[in-house]
Amino acid sequence: MGELRMTPLEGVPEVRPGDDLGALLGDALEPVGGLEEGDVLVVAQKVVSKSEGRIEETNDPLGVSLREARAVRRIRGDLVIAETEHGFVCASAGVDRSNTPGEGWVVLLPRDPDASARGIRAALARRFGAAPAVIVSDSFGRAWRQGTTDVAIGVAGLSPLLDLRGAKDTRGRELEATVIAIADELAGAAELVMGKARRVPAVRIRGYRVPPGDGSARDLVMPRERDLFP
Amino acid sequence: MGELRMTPLEGVPEVRPGDDLGALLGDALEPVGGLEEGDVLVVAQKVVSKSEGRIEETNDPLGVSLREARAVRRIRGDLVIAETEHGFVCASAGVDRSNTPGEGWVVLLPRDPDASARGIRAALARRFGAAPAVIVSDSFGRAWRQGTTDVAIGVAGLSPLLDLRGAKDTRGRELEATVIAIADELAGAAELVMGKARRVPAVRIRGYRVPPGDGSARDLVMPRERDLFP
Repeated sequence: MGELRMTPLEGVPEVRPGDDLGALLGDALEPVGGLEEGDVLVVAQKVVSKSEGRIEETNDPLGVSLREARAVRRIRGDLVIAETEHGFVCASAGVDRSNTPGEGWVVLLPRDPDASARGIRAALARRFGAAPAVIVSDSFGRAWRQGTTDVAIGVAGLSPLLDLRGAKDTRGRELEATVIAIADELAGAAELVMGKARRVPAVRIRGYRVPPGDGSARDLVMPRERDLFP
Repeated sequence: MGELRMTPLEGVPEVRPGDDLGALLGDALEPVGGLEEGDVLVVAQKVVSKSEGRIEETNDPLGVSLREARAVRRIRGDLVIAETEHGFVCASAGVDRSNTPGEGWVVLLPRDPDASARGIRAALARRFGAAPAVIVSDSFGRAWRQGTTDVAIGVAGLSPLLDLRGAKDTRGRELEATVIAIADELAGAAELVMGKARRVPAVRIRGYRVPPGDGSARDLVMPRERDLFP
């Protein structure tokens, strides 16, 4: 494998409900040379949600989080660790009060982030003649570790898990249960380029050979029966 | 921010106890142009441990894991989720049976991975006149999500957490408790380039402006009193 390059997409205007996000991302891809086969595009959840109208004005953000959750795992003070309708476990059920359209507004997760990713992928494939793998990313906290990392909440055109079971190590010994969450690693890598406060809602990753596959971000969710930390 | 480029270091020979890892990594950096100020070098834990002699032959790998743990969080069948002496929560206390020197051998975590990172950083600074930030990375599983991602278990020359509290979002609203585990994101990004079974034990990351700081990977460990998933 050679170099892997991550390029920020800049100049995307503030996204509003009903905006054609595929077109806006396409416009931002033009000055950096568009897309090639094998590229990955990581798109921040925030702009996906805004384009889909998943925003609302509220004076009760906690109530919105509880409404968006299908289960609450832990509560401590203002912190609610919730399970979303998609099965993701994260703070506030993914309901966010920063980078919103205004004070008192919240941004919710897309209803079906895989479908969001598929829509962006299809729009870009039409425009550039090459279909990128698309990842919708969001910042999640983790058990046992401080700080957030970006993870994949929606994917299109890739399998989010790279299963190396059966592969051999450098000595020829079969690797033990080694399944790598590549979509999460790609999302986290892109976050480094996006930053938080700058207006870079998407990153093109070139040079990563995406293994063939077409999965769902739900593949990343630990099945309930294997969850040791319910 | 411009592009971020990740370059694999290839041609590193099999690492053995007592090997000068800084020199081996320096040799592998030469053909890709060495180091510049601001570069980050992510080094796989496995080669760090081997160079430090943290390997042993055993017919009881589970016993070694339990010895290396200071607490066991969960056990299910062969799976032991343990807390290491460093405070990390991971499978088997980081004791690994793949990519070892031979059948029946295990590789343990470095005793002080921050010190390992500092040693590599110092050696490379002497050789190239530019001190990279260094991250020692390992693959950890996560609660609630399938697959592993690489995270930082040792750091030198950077603060592993980027604290954006007090920074403003694009609308000028102060960001809420936003602390990003950049060292984990850099480690995960590098894993994409390292792969698992190929002999790429380190990756140079160029173009990420490392914020000034000098922390410890222990900064990434959730303090016990804030751990909601003991």
